[in-house]
Amino acid sequence: MNSFGNIFRLTSFGESHGEAVGGVIDGFPPGIELDMEFIQSELDRRRPGQSRITTPRVEPDKVVFLSGIFEGKTTGTPIGFMVKNENHHSADYNNLKDVFRPSHADFTYFQKYGIRDHRGGGRSSARETIARVVAGALAKLYLKQIGVSVTAYTSQVGEIKLENNYTKYDLNTIEDTPVRCPDAQKANEMISLIKEVQFNGDTIGGVVTCVIQGVPAGLGEPVFGKLHAALGAAMLSINAVKGFEYGHGFDVSRRGSELNDPFFNDNGKVSTRSNYSGGIQAGISNGQDIYFRVAFKPVSTILKEQQTVDIHGNETTIKARGRHDACVLPRAVPIVEAMAAMVILDYYLLARM
Amino acid sequence: MNSFGNIFRLTSFGESHGEAVGGVIDGFPPGIELDMEFIQSELDRRRPGQSRITTPRVEPDKVVFLSGIFEGKTTGTPIGFMVKNENHHSADYNNLKDVFRPSHADFTYFQKYGIRDHRGGGRSSARETIARVVAGALAKLYLKQIGVSVTAYTSQVGEIKLENNYTKYDLNTIEDTPVRCPDAQKANEMISLIKEVQFNGDTIGGVVTCVIQGVPAGLGEPVFGKLHAALGAAMLSINAVKGFEYGHGFDVSRRGSELNDPFFNDNGKVSTRSNYSGGIQAGISNGQDIYFRVAFKPVSTILKEQQTVDIHGNETTIKARGRHDACVLPRAVPIVEAMAAMVILDYYLLARM
Amino acid sequence: MNSFGNIFRLTSFGESHGEAVGGVIDGFPPGIELDMEFIQSELDRRRPGQSRITTPRVEPDKVVFLSGIFEGKTTGTPIGFMVKNENHHSADYNNLKDVFRPSHADFTYFQKYGIRDHRGGGRSSARETIARVVAGALAKLYLKQIGVSVTAYTSQVGEIKLENNYTKYDLNTIEDTPVRCPDAQKANEMISLIKEVQFNGDTIGGVVTCVIQGVPAGLGEPVFGKLHAALGAAMLSINAVKGFEYGHGFDVSRRGSELNDPFFNDNGKVSTRSNYSGGIQAGISNGQDIYFRVAFKPVSTILKEQQTVDIHGNETTIKARGRHDACVLPRAVPIVEAMAAMVILDYYLLARM
Amino acid sequence: MNSFGNIFRLTSFGESHGEAVGGVIDGFPPGIELDMEFIQSELDRRRPGQSRITTPRVEPDKVVFLSGIFEGKTTGTPIGFMVKNENHHSADYNNLKDVFRPSHADFTYFQKYGIRDHRGGGRSSARETIARVVAGALAKLYLKQIGVSVTAYTSQVGEIKLENNYTKYDLNTIEDTPVRCPDAQKANEMISLIKEVQFNGDTIGGVVTCVIQGVPAGLGEPVFGKLHAALGAAMLSINAVKGFEYGHGFDVSRRGSELNDPFFNDNGKVSTRSNYSGGIQAGISNGQDIYFRVAFKPVSTILKEQQTVDIHGNETTIKARGRHDACVLPRAVPIVEAMAAMVILDYYLLARM
Repeated sequence: MNSFGNIFRLTSFGESHGEAVGGVIDGFPPGIELDMEFIQSELDRRRPGQSRITTPRVEPDKVVFLSGIFEGKTTGTPIGFMVKNENHHSADYNNLKDVFRPSHADFTYFQKYGIRDHRGGGRSSARETIARVVAGALAKLYLKQIGVSVTAYTSQVGEIKLENNYTKYDLNTIEDTPVRCPDAQKANEMISLIKEVQFNGDTIGGVVTCVIQGVPAGLGEPVFGKLHAALGAAMLSINAVKGFEYGHGFDVSRRGSELNDPFFNDNGKVSTRSNYSGGIQAGISNGQDIYFRVAFKPVSTILKEQQTVDIHGNETTIKARGRHDACVLPRAVPIVEAMAAMVILDYYLLARM
Repeated sequence: MNSFGNIFRLTSFGESHGEAVGGVIDGFPPGIELDMEFIQSELDRRRPGQSRITTPRVEPDKVVFLSGIFEGKTTGTPIGFMVKNENHHSADYNNLKDVFRPSHADFTYFQKYGIRDHRGGGRSSARETIARVVAGALAKLYLKQIGVSVTAYTSQVGEIKLENNYTKYDLNTIEDTPVRCPDAQKANEMISLIKEVQFNGDTIGGVVTCVIQGVPAGLGEPVFGKLHAALGAAMLSINAVKGFEYGHGFDVSRRGSELNDPFFNDNGKVSTRSNYSGGIQAGISNGQDIYFRVAFKPVSTILKEQQTVDIHGNETTIKARGRHDACVLPRAVPIVEAMAAMVILDYYLLARM
Repeated sequence: MNSFGNIFRLTSFGESHGEAVGGVIDGFPPGIELDMEFIQSELDRRRPGQSRITTPRVEPDKVVFLSGIFEGKTTGTPIGFMVKNENHHSADYNNLKDVFRPSHADFTYFQKYGIRDHRGGGRSSARETIARVVAGALAKLYLKQIGVSVTAYTSQVGEIKLENNYTKYDLNTIEDTPVRCPDAQKANEMISLIKEVQFNGDTIGGVVTCVIQGVPAGLGEPVFGKLHAALGAAMLSINAVKGFEYGHGFDVSRRGSELNDPFFNDNGKVSTRSNYSGGIQAGISNGQDIYFRVAFKPVSTILKEQQTVDIHGNETTIKARGRHDACVLPRAVPIVEAMAAMVILDYYLLARM
Repeated sequence: MNSFGNIFRLTSFGESHGEAVGGVIDGFPPGIELDMEFIQSELDRRRPGQSRITTPRVEPDKVVFLSGIFEGKTTGTPIGFMVKNENHHSADYNNLKDVFRPSHADFTYFQKYGIRDHRGGGRSSARETIARVVAGALAKLYLKQIGVSVTAYTSQVGEIKLENNYTKYDLNTIEDTPVRCPDAQKANEMISLIKEVQFNGDTIGGVVTCVIQGVPAGLGEPVFGKLHAALGAAMLSINAVKGFEYGHGFDVSRRGSELNDPFFNDNGKVSTRSNYSGGIQAGISNGQDIYFRVAFKPVSTILKEQQTVDIHGNETTIKARGRHDACVLPRAVPIVEAMAAMVILDYYLLARM
């Protein structure tokens, strides 16, 4: 249950209290040049503390590759990699030791494993996403060679929401704002909101939109292996995700005659005049842009007093101390991209069988 | 890719042009009494033509079990089953032979398999869901024994939308209306809308809400096997589904302090005062009700002229004839339940390892 | 655990007390013409009672295909199939009801499932191999198109043993003798031995040799998925198999300098002057003939009194009545071929990825 | 294809030219104390150069655990680990660069991957077994707690063969001889033979016998997941293995009445008077000792001139230089044990489902 993918498969390991986090990537094609700078830059994008509005902890995460590479290129053998953990001051958490933090993993992990925090618990840490980002970076490198790009951005924070769909924005400007939003005006509003929420010791959720361009038609499997089912499962496996929709998604107010995408001959290529399908029809890509939206809940750790119980069943209150991450959205953007890239590469390799 | 589940696993087969549809259920626990009337009634619920507002085709689907049962009880061995196909008048489809119906499986299957309709194509048929409903009925029978119920209903058709969440309705009344909606007033509005849409040769989508009650705390796997990721993948594998959300889902306008669910001691059991989490925290059930919403697009087959191209790339128009299914929502309800029941049983068995 | 294979995958169902045995074949390539006569003839080969020296029960096993075929050709969708069971006179077995037959499945199934015969038990029946033979027949049809043949024969019964390896016999004569042995003289000796053993109410085991010709170089996976590991697992999954060896196998008395196979240039193709490797080097086919040997134990059911215990732990004796199968070897030949064909096709499809 | 096991699952990585070899162990139960000394001692057992008669290369392999352990105990999360590679003088191999070594991985890897040595090639290295031995050591630690022991020994080298089965030897004396053989007299003969073979620049194969004691009855799955099929596949995945047999194996000269194992009541426990079954009946353990034999071919690298071709198809000769490993048997013993331990633990965990 720590593996993801069919042909291209990531098996991840690691929790914050151990030596390192990392993984094994199996099924990555041979002969691909690894751009180490790119991979490291992807890792840097997921780090907290990289901008004013995110949590200021600094973790210098450097990836070390252990196998599967020869003279800078992949060999087709499994790629082992790791990122060392820094010395964590777990004493910081002592006051939370026996108390279930509301809407955290504490209670359910305790129910599942029967031990507070020690077993399994560490896997709910955000550091687990490091392996995803490394594997996603490799997937992106391959996809780039076949003309596929994967781009995500923050499209909503709390009540601040982009008004248009992705076609109306310059996706090259996403990294220009600390919230990773291509609409500068909305980005400023989001930042103000996040600062206000942070000042109040509270947190706020939002939506990440992801666009995948250049996917050839024909990727996806009928029945249980539909391409959007794989994308949905990938997104829902990211911490804090509450929903997934692609194409027109939950907007079901319109009729079939409005939402069907008419085909036309676009200079010899079958294309569609609209794209309410979101690039996937009957579970298989149709060559149009794939786009989807992912809902993230507010971070559960807040600096306000909350009612809860301890592991003995006693009712009590809890109040986290120190600094906290008021909004996970900017950091979520590279993780959404990584998971999407892994799914597309996996299905691309499946389709070649 | 025609198998679903880990421990409890359905492998399905069949398309409309063949002898039968059916499947093999592996990993179903031994000693469970099969209530054949219940299983058949579940199959009947998915049939079209069972009410005025759905398509009037009558398909008397009778399930035949081929193995895995002895003296009315399961034996723990694989359960083979089938439902015969009736003689289909495929001549009805002759005028569509070489044309890609917009937003149908036609084009993407052609891209994937390289042959129009013959290869793979038949698996996009709604008859494929028969195997899901049979396997889901068995899962429900087992879940009933451990006190778990799975109930879905139509919560939105086009712009007509239930105003309250599931706790405000009597879920026993769902089958009283042909749209499977527990709000009689809204049900009438939905029916009127569907009739109007049907009269116009058009179609309409909507949302199915599903509630799972009685799930013990502790089901689900960390990282890639989160319980809601499995539920999401299951739902997104149903034809016409465009989105999935659980708990507060895409409603991200509120703060962490509002959406966190405070724990309290409910006569010795740890419970939560609210349930924005939707019964799942960090991917593992917390003992509260699990609920989620599934968005369905309008059926792609409409009786209006549409622009398209044929397999040779020529632009043309298409207009379906005969009767059509204006709204798939009522039929989707038992399929949503079936998939949910399969996931819960699978994770229940996984948790016992 | 009722599925076999990676890309080409058989999921089987059925036990003797049910309606039918059968399976679902997933991943079979589209466009292959199904030669029904050939498939039925393969099924006929595994039937008992087809010659004087095998058990005389007659079971007219007719395979019915339920899906995945259109106009006589496969479509690429899952192929469901079944063979009806005849009315079994289970009363015949009443005297064995509570007693563990020595070296049968009785005791271990009871230990595993906790119920005598009813749970799981039926899957140890020889009828389970029907699904293997059908799936193997399809695999053979595909392999034939790419020039691969799979041929097995009885090379040893008790102490009667062929003196030469497969290259010295005319493999076309195998079906000419009821023991399926290409050496007519040895075949007669084997038949005499089996008759004598049968007359004494006893049973006898032996060895099946299998030769696969025309396999292209390059099939197999390094490390855990070695081609011979897959072949070995397939053979060891057949009832009554006790051993597997390929190439020079357990004959380890010679030196590396004798057993290494020198390469030479055979008119532009790299070939080897000897073939002690058995066509597989480092887990991957090298283009030479693949050959291996499979040891079968004597059938456990004998007509002699044996000491045993019943399910309550009481020591008792048991003596089977009626006719019995003194030697399973001839019937095992088509099953060995079927499993081998499935493995080769699976790895052929894997290699195309 | 670099993963092994179902519930207890090893995913391995690494080749000799990379930074490290290692793996991820998923599904290992929580709360098990890791005896690091034991794990390291198992690793030391597989090292070459540990005795006069094996190859003298010294590789100080130290395992580093990266995750899944807290305060010396396993946590139930995936266990990442690695062993650094030393600087290899790959120049030593330069004269072999373009030539296919007979019966090595060279030719088949070239056929599969299309590139000489670089892709995939490194995975045929003996260093790949390091991950197996580490995972096997962990499995042994768990099995010890439930009273299961796994012991292998060299039972044949070339024509020198132990005359009795395992019950006649003191298995505690195995490590007393450098060939890991419990019969001191035969061990001396084996050592003489190996020295002579080595002196001649040649190599010799043999047989490893493995005994597993204390396995509870009921482990194994019917049909394709038989316990001995899993053991066989595990053994056949080890480099140089040519055959596997369990119980009476290829010795098929005797009758059913001789080979059936009569049950008796052994002070309340059902036991058998003989154990020709090898502790497994119908694919499921029966509580008796499990034993099996594994045939290893001679190492392919010999110091004699051999005929071969190069990658361009030119016929040539090859002669390896330097020291070589004349007999892999002693080093194979801990690897056989490791694989057996992994299979037994995996099936033990499966049986608890």
